[in-house]
Amino acid sequence: MAEYSGAMTPSRGFVSDNSSGAHPAILEAIAAANAGHVTSYGGDPETARLEEASRAEFGETSVIFPMMNGTGANVAALRAMARPHQAVICAETAHLSIDETAAPEAIAGLKLLGVPTPDGKLIPEIAATKLVDPADVPHAPWPAVISITQATELGTVYTPQEVGVLADFAHENGMLLHMDGSRLANAAASLDLGLGEISLDCGVDVLCFGANKNGALFGEAVVFREPELAEGFEVLRKGSLQLASKMRFVSAQLNALLEGGLWRELAGNANRMAAALSEAAAWIEGVEIAQETQANVVFLAMELEKARAFARRCEPHRPLVFELGGVGLIRLVASWDTQIEDVDKLVTELTTAAHDH
Amino acid sequence: MAEYSGAMTPSRGFVSDNSSGAHPAILEAIAAANAGHVTSYGGDPETARLEEASRAEFGETSVIFPMMNGTGANVAALRAMARPHQAVICAETAHLSIDETAAPEAIAGLKLLGVPTPDGKLIPEIAATKLVDPADVPHAPWPAVISITQATELGTVYTPQEVGVLADFAHENGMLLHMDGSRLANAAASLDLGLGEISLDCGVDVLCFGANKNGALFGEAVVFREPELAEGFEVLRKGSLQLASKMRFVSAQLNALLEGGLWRELAGNANRMAAALSEAAAWIEGVEIAQETQANVVFLAMELEKARAFARRCEPHRPLVFELGGVGLIRLVASWDTQIEDVDKLVTELTTAAHDH
Amino acid sequence: MAEYSGAMTPSRGFVSDNSSGAHPAILEAIAAANAGHVTSYGGDPETARLEEASRAEFGETSVIFPMMNGTGANVAALRAMARPHQAVICAETAHLSIDETAAPEAIAGLKLLGVPTPDGKLIPEIAATKLVDPADVPHAPWPAVISITQATELGTVYTPQEVGVLADFAHENGMLLHMDGSRLANAAASLDLGLGEISLDCGVDVLCFGANKNGALFGEAVVFREPELAEGFEVLRKGSLQLASKMRFVSAQLNALLEGGLWRELAGNANRMAAALSEAAAWIEGVEIAQETQANVVFLAMELEKARAFARRCEPHRPLVFELGGVGLIRLVASWDTQIEDVDKLVTELTTAAHDH
Amino acid sequence: MAEYSGAMTPSRGFVSDNSSGAHPAILEAIAAANAGHVTSYGGDPETARLEEASRAEFGETSVIFPMMNGTGANVAALRAMARPHQAVICAETAHLSIDETAAPEAIAGLKLLGVPTPDGKLIPEIAATKLVDPADVPHAPWPAVISITQATELGTVYTPQEVGVLADFAHENGMLLHMDGSRLANAAASLDLGLGEISLDCGVDVLCFGANKNGALFGEAVVFREPELAEGFEVLRKGSLQLASKMRFVSAQLNALLEGGLWRELAGNANRMAAALSEAAAWIEGVEIAQETQANVVFLAMELEKARAFARRCEPHRPLVFELGGVGLIRLVASWDTQIEDVDKLVTELTTAAHDH
Repeated sequence: MAEYSGAMTPSRGFVSDNSSGAHPAILEAIAAANAGHVTSYGGDPETARLEEASRAEFGETSVIFPMMNGTGANVAALRAMARPHQAVICAETAHLSIDETAAPEAIAGLKLLGVPTPDGKLIPEIAATKLVDPADVPHAPWPAVISITQATELGTVYTPQEVGVLADFAHENGMLLHMDGSRLANAAASLDLGLGEISLDCGVDVLCFGANKNGALFGEAVVFREPELAEGFEVLRKGSLQLASKMRFVSAQLNALLEGGLWRELAGNANRMAAALSEAAAWIEGVEIAQETQANVVFLAMELEKARAFARRCEPHRPLVFELGGVGLIRLVASWDTQIEDVDKLVTELTTAAHDH
Repeated sequence: MAEYSGAMTPSRGFVSDNSSGAHPAILEAIAAANAGHVTSYGGDPETARLEEASRAEFGETSVIFPMMNGTGANVAALRAMARPHQAVICAETAHLSIDETAAPEAIAGLKLLGVPTPDGKLIPEIAATKLVDPADVPHAPWPAVISITQATELGTVYTPQEVGVLADFAHENGMLLHMDGSRLANAAASLDLGLGEISLDCGVDVLCFGANKNGALFGEAVVFREPELAEGFEVLRKGSLQLASKMRFVSAQLNALLEGGLWRELAGNANRMAAALSEAAAWIEGVEIAQETQANVVFLAMELEKARAFARRCEPHRPLVFELGGVGLIRLVASWDTQIEDVDKLVTELTTAAHDH
Repeated sequence: MAEYSGAMTPSRGFVSDNSSGAHPAILEAIAAANAGHVTSYGGDPETARLEEASRAEFGETSVIFPMMNGTGANVAALRAMARPHQAVICAETAHLSIDETAAPEAIAGLKLLGVPTPDGKLIPEIAATKLVDPADVPHAPWPAVISITQATELGTVYTPQEVGVLADFAHENGMLLHMDGSRLANAAASLDLGLGEISLDCGVDVLCFGANKNGALFGEAVVFREPELAEGFEVLRKGSLQLASKMRFVSAQLNALLEGGLWRELAGNANRMAAALSEAAAWIEGVEIAQETQANVVFLAMELEKARAFARRCEPHRPLVFELGGVGLIRLVASWDTQIEDVDKLVTELTTAAHDH
Repeated sequence: MAEYSGAMTPSRGFVSDNSSGAHPAILEAIAAANAGHVTSYGGDPETARLEEASRAEFGETSVIFPMMNGTGANVAALRAMARPHQAVICAETAHLSIDETAAPEAIAGLKLLGVPTPDGKLIPEIAATKLVDPADVPHAPWPAVISITQATELGTVYTPQEVGVLADFAHENGMLLHMDGSRLANAAASLDLGLGEISLDCGVDVLCFGANKNGALFGEAVVFREPELAEGFEVLRKGSLQLASKMRFVSAQLNALLEGGLWRELAGNANRMAAALSEAAAWIEGVEIAQETQANVVFLAMELEKARAFARRCEPHRPLVFELGGVGLIRLVASWDTQIEDVDKLVTELTTAAHDH
């Protein structure tokens, strides 16, 4: 396995928050939940405890379902919100649309109506461009859902008011509001608010709450604001290939994150490291901050060749570089375990690459 | 959480091998894989190591894909083997058909042609009853796959020869052979053979190899005998909502099971406990062994009311009781962590229930 | 085209009621509807007229949707009645299950739970064997619909009372009742009752009303008993690839059948010819009536080799012969245009084949 | 039925070529094919004759399949060309994307990647913007097909050379080329070339050949350039709910169109009427030709309020008016049966509306 020896040396990069491992408290929670036999498929004490913790965080009427992964959580949630042949309005940068290999289309039977946004955030005026004239039914795919990502794929964060305005817009137009919260904790930490306060409380109907990018081993959850919408979801979850047989281990992780505010601690660290990186990068000549850094994802713009040279210097943690109008766009993601030394090291590489000629 | 205090006391039952937790070596392997950042979605050293271990176990041309859960592994595998609107021949007791909420139908678009069997095992003569006259195409759903379960849902085990005969039959009739190996380890331990020797080596084309019921936290794998069949499966896995972002943690568990033969030790224990239970039960008046106990699942027949009384005595680990022609059929499953004391205790309850009147 | 000259000579057989053409009144109705431009996709006068005629026949609250073909009508109807991953109880001889190439599975995402019946007809006691214990949700596919065929694939007919009992059973168990009425007219003619009287009036929730086998060029309809169930069906019809752009031509055919009772005249003729055939065949030594002939499909049992010889004698209208336990089962279908000479000719062939040795 | 009396008076408009009826020769062909019984589902002489005519028109290796309607033809064709979770590059104005209620997504499981074009026509440079970096597999939906419409939804026509260049581009990038030819006859008549010469001969892999908009009652066809691609399509057609049981009546219509060049006569008339309308409209002050008129669809730009007033004047044949940047865009479609008097009448209304203030 010599070829992996580099990667095996514990080291950290800024490629993705999926590249980091699990927080020790997660492993401890799993170990603590490991004793003896319990009922499988959710009839276990950890899941019961999660249901209680979830109601405290997301509202007394809310209903939570542990899931296997993020794609599955999103697709199953959308299946509960819309019927096949309907449509979903989302930002054209939505992970749902560009990074889930047409699973929402193929499994949920939905058309995604992506719209350009300046910062990855939908607003009613932008979403309204995808509304359909009722006279065009049954031909034009009918938008039944608006889907937003919190924090967005571009590292920006919706304020509760912005979410509320979108929820009103959705409901006034007969749509439901879905939130892809794979980085919900980062958004909440950024706003110094609770997880429910920036999602279901603002009118979001169905939330996909991510754990995986915030220090868990695996696992996500779907949270419905009201039980009506959750009707039949037990079957849709299984049918969407997302039912964990040993569910206690998903629930135990979610419990570890929710109880004592571990989610805020971990997401807060990632956000702070991203902010530190962003701030330092702003001082480097030839580097621009491409999007305001509001959570744990940083977008930098740089001369294309220099951006690529920088990426190569980061091996084995080589970040993504996109070309956009001839410019290099670098995506850097801080994790729950990112340390200030990691930031410093990266800034050094960035400076070197920027000054190289 | 008082109502769960009973269950929280570490105790073990015979309800399901999904009720047991994870073996300590699994947790250690996860902890060992937890250092630093690695490439997500499979570009990590644990997955590379797994690919090597898998080739050693399943054949040099085989290709392995870690998956999230058993339903997902089965459905994604079938999507790679057949086109929508085709059919799959299986035993009518197949988990695929009766316990996966129509996911093979809804996600893979396949019709399952279940056939009655005496012992959960298909043979060519039985499978042949579902062959279709080419003149009935495109009307009759065309069987493109035979699916068998190893060990079966009834606790029986296919010999390599039996699998080979089915593989030949499938191939001669233009079909592929799929094996649901959620208890493959139990079958291999029972036969004292290797995992590959009782599956791909016998002509199985695509194998779903289970880890979850044999001491893992979560996770399964799909193994293709030849790379041709695996073409495009990377996309089908993601599209089937089965791609683990932190894949190293699925692979690490599979590595822990494969390396050093842990899988055999754990499955062997479960099998031995099932055998001990079966043997003891056979001596109890009023209790019959309903299926030969070849792996870790035991089926006992008993007067219906007594069977139900026995099940109630097992709370909180109340096993499943089916009614079959007026008789009570009890399903008991031994796990990797079952101890002989657990068996003794169960036999005592069984005896009490049998003698009660 | 010499090889088709035989078939080109207008002649009639008993292979299928799909082998017959269209009644002249159908062609006239199409020609009459052909003048000028009308709104496409259903906004035309013929469709408006059909909606009125349908309410008169099927009930004031009923809602009718013209469709392209029978498979499409059945699959789209089921999509409106059940959610993906649910199940449908039907006779194992149901066309839906054995002759629609897994389209209900692949398109509607449903599992068909076929049960053996003596005569192609479901009764509550038989359907009840497929009910699922609520404790098995979300694992066991949950039956949400009972589907029956009127007249059945075996040529038998449900009485209104039998349908009513099944409707009650379905509704008491939280299911809906679907009727595949591709030969509804034959059943109604057989019972000397109206189309609605033997379907929606008895509690059927959604009816697929066939025109194609009863003298139409193409086209079917889905009729909902209540508008609630039809909600969203306009989209499901289009999404199920069943929306006719020039819908006036489907509606005109249905109008021609419904108005003046043409449907009864045509179906009545087919039934009478089938009865004549059945009666005559019963007198032939070596020929048995395998199912009571109640509509236009006749099943005869005969020594296998003789049955095959008979089929060959019928070229180019060679009927289907199945082998069942060593016996030859011959399926003969009378059409709207079958004449008594056709019956006589067939009986002669049958007699010859039976007496040959 | 008084409310429909207006529409019942045979009159013609420019709303859609789906609003027109069938050409008399179509009805005659159906009547001629109506004699006697023939094998259903395609085993009839008309279909055999169609297969021969199709090879003459589309190439000796081509394979034709009659279909029920346009949505069905497109979706079934795409299912044969790509696997679920893949993507299709098309113009954002493609009917496939905006007018088929997400059927390509829901039934074929494909994501449509719509791109803006100036005139409804794709060119390699535009299509190339949707190519995906192989490193983004399995996340980014992978384009497996380019789909173009001939003539386009905007009334423009691809030259054979333009199609050829796109075919090369598609094939060089591992994609197939699909052509939605619901108005293929109009394109061929416009170019004064054969149907095959502007489609399969240029490298199109799978063609949907429309009959419905060009004087047929109903029906379309899918034509594969090579038999390999057609493998399994018989099942996909049935499974896509597109198999006509009395297929002779679809084939007879296609034969009537193909034999003797009726298709060219009808499409040619529609094109000429559209050209006449376009020419006359260009002289009206306040009316602009929004797209060059190359087939039978005309797009006019006009002050929004005047455009709406014009549309109202056309009742009951009220054409579509879109708002585009404050301007009214009027879509007018000439049909096979459009007469020069119809054009004159429309131009009068247009002039009146334009001069009104």
